[in-house]
Amino acid sequence: MPDDRNDAGLDFAVVAKSNPASNRRLGVMVSGRGSNLQALIDAVADGRLDASIAVVISNRAEAEGLERARRAGIEALYINHRGWPSRDHYDRALAEELRKRGVRLVCLAGFMRLLGPTMIDAFPQGIVNIHPALLPSFPGLDAQRQALDYGVKVTGVTVHLVTTALDAGPIILQRSVPVLETDTVETLSARILVEEHRAYPEAVKLLLDGQWTLAGRRFLRPGSPAEG
Amino acid sequence: MPDDRNDAGLDFAVVAKSNPASNRRLGVMVSGRGSNLQALIDAVADGRLDASIAVVISNRAEAEGLERARRAGIEALYINHRGWPSRDHYDRALAEELRKRGVRLVCLAGFMRLLGPTMIDAFPQGIVNIHPALLPSFPGLDAQRQALDYGVKVTGVTVHLVTTALDAGPIILQRSVPVLETDTVETLSARILVEEHRAYPEAVKLLLDGQWTLAGRRFLRPGSPAEG
Repeated sequence: MPDDRNDAGLDFAVVAKSNPASNRRLGVMVSGRGSNLQALIDAVADGRLDASIAVVISNRAEAEGLERARRAGIEALYINHRGWPSRDHYDRALAEELRKRGVRLVCLAGFMRLLGPTMIDAFPQGIVNIHPALLPSFPGLDAQRQALDYGVKVTGVTVHLVTTALDAGPIILQRSVPVLETDTVETLSARILVEEHRAYPEAVKLLLDGQWTLAGRRFLRPGSPAEG
Repeated sequence: MPDDRNDAGLDFAVVAKSNPASNRRLGVMVSGRGSNLQALIDAVADGRLDASIAVVISNRAEAEGLERARRAGIEALYINHRGWPSRDHYDRALAEELRKRGVRLVCLAGFMRLLGPTMIDAFPQGIVNIHPALLPSFPGLDAQRQALDYGVKVTGVTVHLVTTALDAGPIILQRSVPVLETDTVETLSARILVEEHRAYPEAVKLLLDGQWTLAGRRFLRPGSPAEG
């Protein structure tokens, strides 16, 4: 059972202290295989991503992602989503563990639980997710199968900030991936996954580097060199 | 007023006669500038697209597209959408003019009227449209503005078969286009338009070349060389 005595005031003090721009501590949340966690671990290890992974949390004890964390010398924490009086209690427990470790940015990497307002509010614009489609097309589960069934010729990857609306937060980065005539769900998913593994560390870097703003829903980096 | 004495049986006989695989006659329908019409005219002229444009029809007398047709020596037909007892009557008139000229494939190029079942049924899988977004994202009007407001980082172009559902027919071809930080509706629309002008003749060629099938919603060309 979580300890509910921490009131909102105390919580925000902790957030404020742990979130200076120099803080590049990540918390990664997984439910399964954790291949995007591995992409983040690898990007940190080889210097593409200047960050540290403070903790990996899973709602499933048997998640391969926890094993990946241990192998990389990262704390691996199992917090069952069952047995709490409400989702809010579970969210508070997650937020507390992440804050204790000074996490600035929470990266969802195949975390199969919806987060409620308590978690979202605990990390304002500080939770990020990766989705295997070009949102707003094909939100929710089985995005690759949705894309194949719809018959699109281009799909892709979206990294976005997490809000309480499913797969609908501001978009940090997108990459397109072609759909081939011969594709099955498996071959398409594999091609998208390659792009996910490139896109996620890049997007996390953009978020940590700061200098970004939201103009309406548009994620902009006014100080960055022009693209094109 | 249209002549309603042609019954369905007669109509289908005409369609059957005018639609052998060797028929590569297009009808293009425009309401405005007709830059995608121009892309088709140019592709035919320089040999990229083995087809002939039998007629250009507009619901607006002042459409620049009609002028483009005349300049290219193509019959330009103005058929006002107003003054008919119903949309069905208007659709019959359009279908009749297209059939008279032996048109096999109807290409919408900025034609701003919804087509009803009468036109759709008159050209089964024979009406094609181009949309300035990666459908199913951003159907309907102002797709470029919708994409900017949503904050996507990738948008594009879709060429699709026309059904009675708005912008929801099977997809022939899609091309992605990046959205830049500095984009306005104007700059993004211009970048998408370049891709439209490439994509439309390509998609029309695929349709005319035949050897395609629909598997559910998926447009497939089983006989074509593998992509990749």
